[in-house]
Amino acid sequence: MSLTDIRIVLVEPAHPGNIGAVARAMKTMGLSRMILVRPAAFPSVEATHRASGAEDLLESARLVLSLSEAIADCRLVMGCSARPRSVRHPLLDARAGAAQLVAEADEGDPVALVFGPERSGLANADLDLCTHQVQIPTHPEFSSLNLGAAVQLLAYEIFMASASGPEAVSRVQEGQMRPALQIEMAHFYDHLERVLDQRGFLEGDLREVTLTKLRRMFTRARPHSGELKLLHSILKLIVPGD
Amino acid sequence: MSLTDIRIVLVEPAHPGNIGAVARAMKTMGLSRMILVRPAAFPSVEATHRASGAEDLLESARLVLSLSEAIADCRLVMGCSARPRSVRHPLLDARAGAAQLVAEADEGDPVALVFGPERSGLANADLDLCTHQVQIPTHPEFSSLNLGAAVQLLAYEIFMASASGPEAVSRVQEGQMRPALQIEMAHFYDHLERVLDQRGFLEGDLREVTLTKLRRMFTRARPHSGELKLLHSILKLIVPGD
Repeated sequence: MSLTDIRIVLVEPAHPGNIGAVARAMKTMGLSRMILVRPAAFPSVEATHRASGAEDLLESARLVLSLSEAIADCRLVMGCSARPRSVRHPLLDARAGAAQLVAEADEGDPVALVFGPERSGLANADLDLCTHQVQIPTHPEFSSLNLGAAVQLLAYEIFMASASGPEAVSRVQEGQMRPALQIEMAHFYDHLERVLDQRGFLEGDLREVTLTKLRRMFTRARPHSGELKLLHSILKLIVPGD
Repeated sequence: MSLTDIRIVLVEPAHPGNIGAVARAMKTMGLSRMILVRPAAFPSVEATHRASGAEDLLESARLVLSLSEAIADCRLVMGCSARPRSVRHPLLDARAGAAQLVAEADEGDPVALVFGPERSGLANADLDLCTHQVQIPTHPEFSSLNLGAAVQLLAYEIFMASASGPEAVSRVQEGQMRPALQIEMAHFYDHLERVLDQRGFLEGDLREVTLTKLRRMFTRARPHSGELKLLHSILKLIVPGD
């Protein structure tokens, strides 16, 4: 496999210097694909300065308008967040998360590791687009990792997981169906929302909460295309025309 | 043991900002003892700024004139250097080095992890004072880790090697919603089957295959009770009376 199948996605990075620091951190560990979602400023002198030798990553970085766009062709999307979650994403520490990213990239799929804005971290709506959550273990009394440091640590674990070879990493079981692409998931969620709306299931204050709950549950299941097809058919029992 | 027995020694750090970044990196991983050997400037506004929350480490940092002084009471002194060495130090990678630091600190001895100046790294004379050399694995074509990043990675491996690391994450997992009981899952599957049967969705040879597929997908999601309740309500859109 190649580490180029692992993309680093920064959502709304506020400080241009951090983008440069991330490029440098990535390059030291053999990563090269950076996607920027609505950066506050890019390109910038500050980013180029901090990249110090990793300017090529900045030049080839992709700019997109939404996280969905950045991950549309991925099956595995891992969001880095220190936030304790009441809802259950599969929650992995940095080492286990890196092992899984490497294992699934080995299958030939692009996989994404996503970081939120410096101050606030990933918003719930963006975390909901992730199939997994990864946390970097830190001291409970001071968990203030900056963006560059967080990327550096995860990139290192990815490099370690890849260098140690496939036998050290639990591979995705052979014969297992591959999870659907995120764009297929998005189509399913749209269909689900339309159907429930038409039947008045989603009226009132709880509309968004309910949709979020459902999305999270199906995201966790990581259905493959065949299963999604079944779910679409079941939705057609509710609203035949759709 | 306590992580306070592990000291981080910076030899001739040139950029005050890096001292602050190191303090922050150390504190995120529970390290607190910093020793500075002939820093170019200290204290400084820049160091305090970059420490952002770890100023206490700067305040308690010890200033000394030589590496020998910094390590006089240590048995284990590990020098971080990317330099290939002809001299026979035991050479460890970051993970093995951290494990050894933690193991010897467990014995009650102070141990030291030493970093050289940003540009040149540890001079031979200083490396000769070290009992071990540690290297952080990096991509062979771009090994340019800055000082803050190098300390961050080793501090992280130290934290992981100490008891506190893995615990932090498992604590987070405990607060999460618990998956529904299997008996609740069974009720849901019964409901699903009845509803699909009544709408003629399951006729023919594929009946069992289809049900199995759906069960597997929902089993994988491990829904909690609240999510199951939502799914029951959606089934009632298909067959209202059930």
